[in-house]
Amino acid sequence: MHFASDNSGPVHPEVLTALAEANQGYQMAYGADTLMNEVRDQVRGIFEAPGAAVYLVATGTAANSLALATLSQPWETVFCSPVAHIHEDECNAPEFYSGAKLTLVPGGDKMSPEALRLSIEGEETRGVHGPQRGPVSITQVTERGSVYTLCELQALCRVAKDYDLPVHMDGARFTNALVALNCSPAEMTWKAGVDAVSFGGTKNGLMGVEAVVFFDESKAWEFELRRKRGAHLFSKHRFLSAQMAAYLKDDLWLRSARQANANCAQLANGLRAAGATFLHEPQANMIFASFPRSLHRKLHDAGAVYHLWGDTLEGTDEDEMLACRFVCDWSNPPEQIEQFLSLL
Amino acid sequence: MHFASDNSGPVHPEVLTALAEANQGYQMAYGADTLMNEVRDQVRGIFEAPGAAVYLVATGTAANSLALATLSQPWETVFCSPVAHIHEDECNAPEFYSGAKLTLVPGGDKMSPEALRLSIEGEETRGVHGPQRGPVSITQVTERGSVYTLCELQALCRVAKDYDLPVHMDGARFTNALVALNCSPAEMTWKAGVDAVSFGGTKNGLMGVEAVVFFDESKAWEFELRRKRGAHLFSKHRFLSAQMAAYLKDDLWLRSARQANANCAQLANGLRAAGATFLHEPQANMIFASFPRSLHRKLHDAGAVYHLWGDTLEGTDEDEMLACRFVCDWSNPPEQIEQFLSLL
Amino acid sequence: MHFASDNSGPVHPEVLTALAEANQGYQMAYGADTLMNEVRDQVRGIFEAPGAAVYLVATGTAANSLALATLSQPWETVFCSPVAHIHEDECNAPEFYSGAKLTLVPGGDKMSPEALRLSIEGEETRGVHGPQRGPVSITQVTERGSVYTLCELQALCRVAKDYDLPVHMDGARFTNALVALNCSPAEMTWKAGVDAVSFGGTKNGLMGVEAVVFFDESKAWEFELRRKRGAHLFSKHRFLSAQMAAYLKDDLWLRSARQANANCAQLANGLRAAGATFLHEPQANMIFASFPRSLHRKLHDAGAVYHLWGDTLEGTDEDEMLACRFVCDWSNPPEQIEQFLSLL
Amino acid sequence: MHFASDNSGPVHPEVLTALAEANQGYQMAYGADTLMNEVRDQVRGIFEAPGAAVYLVATGTAANSLALATLSQPWETVFCSPVAHIHEDECNAPEFYSGAKLTLVPGGDKMSPEALRLSIEGEETRGVHGPQRGPVSITQVTERGSVYTLCELQALCRVAKDYDLPVHMDGARFTNALVALNCSPAEMTWKAGVDAVSFGGTKNGLMGVEAVVFFDESKAWEFELRRKRGAHLFSKHRFLSAQMAAYLKDDLWLRSARQANANCAQLANGLRAAGATFLHEPQANMIFASFPRSLHRKLHDAGAVYHLWGDTLEGTDEDEMLACRFVCDWSNPPEQIEQFLSLL
Repeated sequence: MHFASDNSGPVHPEVLTALAEANQGYQMAYGADTLMNEVRDQVRGIFEAPGAAVYLVATGTAANSLALATLSQPWETVFCSPVAHIHEDECNAPEFYSGAKLTLVPGGDKMSPEALRLSIEGEETRGVHGPQRGPVSITQVTERGSVYTLCELQALCRVAKDYDLPVHMDGARFTNALVALNCSPAEMTWKAGVDAVSFGGTKNGLMGVEAVVFFDESKAWEFELRRKRGAHLFSKHRFLSAQMAAYLKDDLWLRSARQANANCAQLANGLRAAGATFLHEPQANMIFASFPRSLHRKLHDAGAVYHLWGDTLEGTDEDEMLACRFVCDWSNPPEQIEQFLSLL
Repeated sequence: MHFASDNSGPVHPEVLTALAEANQGYQMAYGADTLMNEVRDQVRGIFEAPGAAVYLVATGTAANSLALATLSQPWETVFCSPVAHIHEDECNAPEFYSGAKLTLVPGGDKMSPEALRLSIEGEETRGVHGPQRGPVSITQVTERGSVYTLCELQALCRVAKDYDLPVHMDGARFTNALVALNCSPAEMTWKAGVDAVSFGGTKNGLMGVEAVVFFDESKAWEFELRRKRGAHLFSKHRFLSAQMAAYLKDDLWLRSARQANANCAQLANGLRAAGATFLHEPQANMIFASFPRSLHRKLHDAGAVYHLWGDTLEGTDEDEMLACRFVCDWSNPPEQIEQFLSLL
Repeated sequence: MHFASDNSGPVHPEVLTALAEANQGYQMAYGADTLMNEVRDQVRGIFEAPGAAVYLVATGTAANSLALATLSQPWETVFCSPVAHIHEDECNAPEFYSGAKLTLVPGGDKMSPEALRLSIEGEETRGVHGPQRGPVSITQVTERGSVYTLCELQALCRVAKDYDLPVHMDGARFTNALVALNCSPAEMTWKAGVDAVSFGGTKNGLMGVEAVVFFDESKAWEFELRRKRGAHLFSKHRFLSAQMAAYLKDDLWLRSARQANANCAQLANGLRAAGATFLHEPQANMIFASFPRSLHRKLHDAGAVYHLWGDTLEGTDEDEMLACRFVCDWSNPPEQIEQFLSLL
Repeated sequence: MHFASDNSGPVHPEVLTALAEANQGYQMAYGADTLMNEVRDQVRGIFEAPGAAVYLVATGTAANSLALATLSQPWETVFCSPVAHIHEDECNAPEFYSGAKLTLVPGGDKMSPEALRLSIEGEETRGVHGPQRGPVSITQVTERGSVYTLCELQALCRVAKDYDLPVHMDGARFTNALVALNCSPAEMTWKAGVDAVSFGGTKNGLMGVEAVVFFDESKAWEFELRRKRGAHLFSKHRFLSAQMAAYLKDDLWLRSARQANANCAQLANGLRAAGATFLHEPQANMIFASFPRSLHRKLHDAGAVYHLWGDTLEGTDEDEMLACRFVCDWSNPPEQIEQFLSLL
């Protein structure tokens, strides 16, 4: 009953198998492995973007920071949600890589087009004195488990385009959103107006691989240099390629995300039936819920692992509502979900 | 017959097995995995340094850049060899992470204590105007396949200590040097005066793991923050831990390096017998040799893979001496070495 | 009738005279001029801080950015008002120099101790993942013309000290606040808990000099190196020294600020009598007021120069209230103030 | 008898007069002063470059660092002399602003086209691994008092252009070189192939102003943002404009440089007659000479001020040759030069 995070579970067995298969003979290092050619084609294929530039790195923070650095200038500001991972959870890495600052678009978890427009309008009103307008970064799935609809994505991108600003998508949970929306990768990215995407794999069954995809190839060489300068170019790169190749083969990425979302829905239904309220309606593989301390205690004592969200189990008021977060991935054993539900 | 680099070979099977074993159940992310506790103890054990701070990253450039950034200030200069990897092959990553610049100590591949002292004396002569003296970085094995003796290391460190400068060792091929010197890790590092070491694994059978070891623990927290800010903290960190644990278990690190050096010696002997001359006397797992184009052509046509070093196979003078580089690792199949030798 | 900014007026004649006097014979460059010794003593004297480190730079942005860089680490965040100059008007310079990011303390122009505490509490809750808590930066006079009372300053500093955070004061209009509070520089800084201050001169009659004062001398050498690395160390430094020496001689700094505040009060009284409302109660040398377009037009046509604040003179509704900003300095000619008042 | 540096003398009286004249009434801040329009036209006029972008900063290090940052990318390397000011005397400022590193072209004070070509050829041989080729920076007058001829400049620029690299000229002593060559600013810059120049004023009679001139205007806006972000945009900018306007009016720049060079020649002739040898043949306003300790002592005792160059007056061997540096500027009083010569 481990629901702490989608990066605490194991790697999918098909990925391990692929690593072992890739471990034959010699391969040129630093991305010149033959597998990377396959990966490039696979990624271009699923995105219906034959001219896309495709790169692999090992962490989501690297993907986001390098992508944003490539899209921005050090005197610009990046527009994002106040709870964006790039703002709250990357220890200044985006700023380190880009030199840019972040402007937090007021509102909740999801940015609204109106709030984004106001934030953009608020910059470049002071000539060289304030930061200049830079990229818009959209987190899909959001940090609170919500999913932007295609309409919402298109509306945000339209605002960005009104100001000629590039759009980045932090897709650490890209596929969880994709299967929730039941749309194509192209629809969720370049067809909506996204220019570059951090296409996550680590939270969805890989060991540690994220692709960065630029739909405009002109940024490719700069990205390669930034990746090397950031110490994110792997010598034994074939093992990144192998993971991504396995991910995209036989729909593993889709199967994993569907399973994660299904697990999440099952949990959410159980919690709802038990009277829990949701801080955000669960739409992918994360639940932010609130229920009494007594129930938390019961779950905790039975061995369920998840994060309380700003609250603490300590306290004597058994009826007090405590907020918490559950995250599912492909690997949650069905019997443990059953066990969890039986406790509710 | 692949001798292009020690990062183009496969991962040692024991490492793959360890990855599979680590892939059970749930583990807290970002370095809080239980395996990392073992690794920390193992590393402290082999270095006889119970108080050392030990961290894992996935690339050698990350290890070097983060270590140097932690040991320096952005207004300082790092003293290193003109052919140091940090200068020639990391696309400004050390400068990016540290803000410091590099001062190239004149001379050849290896720094001499005298030349190092002169270089240090050449800085801080102009108050705030020039860069301030910063860390000394020693590459062991050097980029030309040489190994500093313990006496040489001690002498370099003594110079650094005369000026209160910290010493970093770029040990991408640490173990190849260690087995060549037949000494202990402690002797080759802190007992000689080294303050921090990039303890490489990737070139010696791992998939992509380097440890950074600080013998003075006071730099630990700063390093952790720099690692995260550099996007080098892995969420599924257990798979870095598993590699390093396997590396240090049952002497895999020593076995691999001994095999690599032995392969190299076998090759070097063959080349020597065939009349090749050595640009640098091979001391670990790298050979820089020179022999006639006709022999290169013969090897090439038979399928041997290695880098020419500033020369090209094209040309008509069959007697012209062309420089080249061979690198061995643990994985070179004996029959391929035999085959190679038979061609000489 | 020029009230656009306190950096658009002339330099005080006593300063020009001092520059001419300093222009005799030879002086060692880069801060080794004899005048700088006097300045150091003067500044230490007025701050009752015999051990303070005192440096001169030529722009307020340099003073703030270098001071904050010296007080912070690149993985930290600086707490400041959402309308702080360092956030809105320095084109990412504080981030460039420090590497740190800025956390905007919610609320208005002035930070409240409660809001500051909540903001500080909101960081360092995620280990290495979020930015670490860094300096608190207080703008005195604020960007909206308000003045923190000594009690308010003390309360903010107490919060910072509860978390061991250093406090920086952006005192671009330091003396305007000082004479408004009628207190001593020591009371407004180190006695309240401020660790370093940008002690502005440019907006109060100088040509371009700001002092940076650290009450803890241990940061002195780092600051000197940062200043040089930032290209802010003047070769003909005596001309910075001369300005600051003149500023502190015969109370020029106090006389200038008193005159500026008095001019402002006179203007504000006139505007109040004419029915203007104030967005912020004028407390030093700035007025943020609102009055009908018809009056703006009248003033404008008569030659008054000041900034509309997010509004525009164009429009046909003569009764519409338009916001604007007036800034006074020592130099406003009395007859022009008379003329302005006569228009109201 | 002060010959320590051309930044230790006074400001030219015509410049002080211009500052006083500029101190009338109100002027918009931050470069929007009306005088700057004149300055732009003046600079474009003397450079015969009607489309040039022209900016003012207050230090030579700022001019160089901002210009190089605008011409380069953070993964590049700047080619320069091993004794270039940007390498030896700017405390990592060029690296701080640009992110690029410096490649020292082997040889002496002046770069030769052959050595430059070899250095350029030595980079970009390792794909993304090494730094990429970036701007060439030429110091004119060099740090050793030599002047590149027009032929030499053209040859260096041709090499740069062969690789499509931009050329920067560090002209801290631009006018001293210009009058030594008796050529036009255009001939010494864009006609030879220079793309951007730090056009120095401070060492030639100004208080603290350097112009940065880009012959290709497309870099203008980026430079403006970099200047602000670097905290080098002056609010009371009119006082920078006034200095540069006075400098270019009535040939003050040329008169000052001619006087400095003439003073230097007079000194050099006297030294030569007294048996001094020259480390570099004096060509502008600097002398690097060597003569016996006894003569140094005599000069020193008579009050002459200049820097020994790596040597020290202490010692008992009166015949030992000690190296030293003399720098002249426009302000050396004729009677002091007479007095100095009479001592030889």
